[in-house]
Amino acid sequence: MDVLKKRILEEGRVVGEEILKVDSFLNHQIDVQLFQEIGQEFYKKFAHKNITKILTIEASGIAIASIAALYFKVPVVFAKKTKSRNLDNDTYKSKAYSFTKEMYYDIQVSKRYIQEGERILILDDFLANGKAVLALMDIVNQAGATVEGVGIVIEKGFQDGGKLLRGKKVNLESLVIVDRFKDGIIKFMN
Amino acid sequence: MDVLKKRILEEGRVVGEEILKVDSFLNHQIDVQLFQEIGQEFYKKFAHKNITKILTIEASGIAIASIAALYFKVPVVFAKKTKSRNLDNDTYKSKAYSFTKEMYYDIQVSKRYIQEGERILILDDFLANGKAVLALMDIVNQAGATVEGVGIVIEKGFQDGGKLLRGKKVNLESLVIVDRFKDGIIKFMN
Repeated sequence: MDVLKKRILEEGRVVGEEILKVDSFLNHQIDVQLFQEIGQEFYKKFAHKNITKILTIEASGIAIASIAALYFKVPVVFAKKTKSRNLDNDTYKSKAYSFTKEMYYDIQVSKRYIQEGERILILDDFLANGKAVLALMDIVNQAGATVEGVGIVIEKGFQDGGKLLRGKKVNLESLVIVDRFKDGIIKFMN
Repeated sequence: MDVLKKRILEEGRVVGEEILKVDSFLNHQIDVQLFQEIGQEFYKKFAHKNITKILTIEASGIAIASIAALYFKVPVVFAKKTKSRNLDNDTYKSKAYSFTKEMYYDIQVSKRYIQEGERILILDDFLANGKAVLALMDIVNQAGATVEGVGIVIEKGFQDGGKLLRGKKVNLESLVIVDRFKDGIIKFMN
């Protein structure tokens, strides 16, 4: 997706060999016009799957999922990472590891909002070790629904997530795949 | 906003006298078509303010802000509640109290993403004690920008937030104001 690659090259900031900061447009400040193009791209890739719901995880997946959902015309559900008095007790739970926060955390989705037989599209901003996506897939399976696809804005091609998911025959579409950052240089693998 | 009141009456679940669960369409599952109507409503109320950026707070404010931003054609910035390797060290910080999580937490915004002189619209899903909005306003002030308005989807009229903000002459627009829930009954004050 050329417009996305251009923004990453122009605004991405590399920290060490593993961190790519794109918080000027993707996950702190949000460029909603770009998100419309991202949403349309996901729609092109997954429209034929008759998606009934988009599932993501708080926080930075929410904007991507919400704007993409305008094209799919389906609801979004976002998995929650923390307990809240607003969350039902009756939830599907799973566990994930955050690469950027360096910690394990539980994720939960109320059982009300994923029904048996639903055709789920999982969307997220980054794919690193794949643990968040696996936890979301676990929740979809617990609900008796199916994961029809996984859409990622930026996959880190040098971490295990992509290989892991493709090895499980997941229908994974990453709009951009970046290579390890040598000397602060960003290179793409797709 | 009648369509919103209708959804609250049909799907809202009252817990005790203070908690209104609207997670079927607002803050766990998201009805993006409704969010377009909410975004248009905020645009009607604040379009004349020449907003340059929408500020919200993770997580449930993000979807509201992102879809509203499509009408304003401005970027969204969301304040972060937790530390992350992705967040700059150079941030504006403030402190808020969560009514639903019953705890204090720090919020942060990178100094890169609010500039002096910007005209900020703050959007959020709920207004209870007003502490989250006050913390966001504090951050806008630290940046030398101005808060041109605060838009809330559901204000709890029986908590102090609305009174507090209106007392400070904040340009507050709540799409719906609910009264205390007696015997599980939802009544509106606007």
